[in-house]
Amino acid sequence: MSRTVAQVRVEVEEAARWLAGRVVRTPVLRSPVIDELAGVRVLFKAENLQNGGSYKMRGALRAVGRLAAAGHTGVIAQSTGNHAVAVALAARQHGLAATVVLPVDAAPTKVDRARAAGARVVLAGTDVEERVAVANGLSDDSGHPVIDAYDHLDVIAGQGTASLELIEEAERAGTPLDALVVPVGGGGGVAGACLAAAGSGIEVYGVEPVGCDSLARSLAAGVRVPVAPSPTIADGLRPSCVGELPFAIARHTLRGVVRVDDDEIGAAFRLILTELKVLAEPSGAAGLAGALRLPPDEGRQRTVGVVLTGGNVEAALVARLMAPRSVEVATGEGVTR
Amino acid sequence: MSRTVAQVRVEVEEAARWLAGRVVRTPVLRSPVIDELAGVRVLFKAENLQNGGSYKMRGALRAVGRLAAAGHTGVIAQSTGNHAVAVALAARQHGLAATVVLPVDAAPTKVDRARAAGARVVLAGTDVEERVAVANGLSDDSGHPVIDAYDHLDVIAGQGTASLELIEEAERAGTPLDALVVPVGGGGGVAGACLAAAGSGIEVYGVEPVGCDSLARSLAAGVRVPVAPSPTIADGLRPSCVGELPFAIARHTLRGVVRVDDDEIGAAFRLILTELKVLAEPSGAAGLAGALRLPPDEGRQRTVGVVLTGGNVEAALVARLMAPRSVEVATGEGVTR
Repeated sequence: MSRTVAQVRVEVEEAARWLAGRVVRTPVLRSPVIDELAGVRVLFKAENLQNGGSYKMRGALRAVGRLAAAGHTGVIAQSTGNHAVAVALAARQHGLAATVVLPVDAAPTKVDRARAAGARVVLAGTDVEERVAVANGLSDDSGHPVIDAYDHLDVIAGQGTASLELIEEAERAGTPLDALVVPVGGGGGVAGACLAAAGSGIEVYGVEPVGCDSLARSLAAGVRVPVAPSPTIADGLRPSCVGELPFAIARHTLRGVVRVDDDEIGAAFRLILTELKVLAEPSGAAGLAGALRLPPDEGRQRTVGVVLTGGNVEAALVARLMAPRSVEVATGEGVTR
Repeated sequence: MSRTVAQVRVEVEEAARWLAGRVVRTPVLRSPVIDELAGVRVLFKAENLQNGGSYKMRGALRAVGRLAAAGHTGVIAQSTGNHAVAVALAARQHGLAATVVLPVDAAPTKVDRARAAGARVVLAGTDVEERVAVANGLSDDSGHPVIDAYDHLDVIAGQGTASLELIEEAERAGTPLDALVVPVGGGGGVAGACLAAAGSGIEVYGVEPVGCDSLARSLAAGVRVPVAPSPTIADGLRPSCVGELPFAIARHTLRGVVRVDDDEIGAAFRLILTELKVLAEPSGAAGLAGALRLPPDEGRQRTVGVVLTGGNVEAALVARLMAPRSVEVATGEGVTR
């Protein structure tokens, strides 16, 4: 597999060249207060400042771009969140028709954003199996391909370009990464990070909410293990099972998975807002929560990269997370594997 | 005066060259939603992502750097907010002693941040006259110069470099600025913007909270007019009088002043957080509130630059501004002059 990973890494490099100028080269942010708290130097890749508010734009644009070049005239996507909106935006950019399948209880803002991007919105069921069935049916009828949110090499490679840019910019700044931390939903982002870091010696860690730890369990079992996801404020990290392709990549290259709870994610959200001055969605803040859980340095100062994957969050949740509260104690379960 | 302004503009260019690599070259951010609302293309210079969380770092660093080069071993500053902390940080960077005079009712976080930067903190009175008297006394005793928060050419030139970078980057992106909007406290930032824009044809507008409109009144009267500042959430925009040097620069070059109320500032704060995904302090958000007040385009699409001056804001205020609310109606007084 490791030879395959090295071969597949080329996909990330090609995606990065193709995406240059098509997506925002988001800044790398730092905070002395966070460095002090973490006991390591932390570099944040601010993909919440990406077009569409998340790094999903990278994978969607890469996948749609290749399909457009191959002559397709339309695409189909399903998701609860950022991926569907990103595919809609990417399709409009390439002049393709987009149909996106959202759950019947989707946040009205997400439905609005997909429609504003010109997509046809189909509301179907409340779980992923129902949406997948509807998306596949639409694909059979129309001949338009489905772009999966994470089980798709172009999507993984596109998401991986955020990690690749962070790795490059850390080197350029004279603070090369020792580790890279990425939140895990279906695993597309963390698999992309594994590809981007392949051969570099950089340790890649995934972060999962407690009770939404399909990747951690799958790594322990050696096969994909679905879970019944627990409630969490990190709603982007709740797929019931890690994707097949992400798992195949991660199982040979990921250093470990960190589990974090909602208190830790909330504390990370507040640190990012008050110290870095940017808005992360809780799913994105989970990356910092995980970085704060890594074993402390021994001796020299390490540099840890965190991909702030997105910033699409409802105002009411921001208000709730920023309201005065009592002191919190971290209660997560630590690093697995 | 206009010849003088052209001559003084050189100070901004020199400051920009000197500050390159010493401050963060902050990104320029955009949002299609905000463009749509404003009816113009809006480019934001995200100085909330600057070291120290505000563009005050630019002026402080430039002023302290010149004093260090001239052989001074210490500096003194007074302010209620970002300037004192910025001078403390700049002094530490240059190995100078810093004494900062803060009001006795200063926010504990500001006292902490000044001390964390290694400054001696003196608490004195509650109004600016008391602090100025104490700062001047300390200067007489120690021989260390006072760096005024806005009545100081290096400070004005330093703050102006944020505008200069925005002007340059807008040109590079193929969307040169037609107008530039900057919030007004003592007037250092807006005077710097006037210098940066001198000779370019770019219209520069200041923004003042309703009831804190010393600059607007001074421009109307032709002499500096102090006010008894009204309460506002934009606490950085409440000096009782515009500075002498900023007024001398602005009176010949500023296109106008826009007055905005707290509802408009709050609405701008929320737009910046939810659409741009960055945290602006209300004083910084006032810039967007002002831009939304400018007369709409006729014909071709104009491009308006907004300097997001800073992002230092208490968590409780963020919670209050993001809490669910009823629909608001703008009630400000519009453009003056």
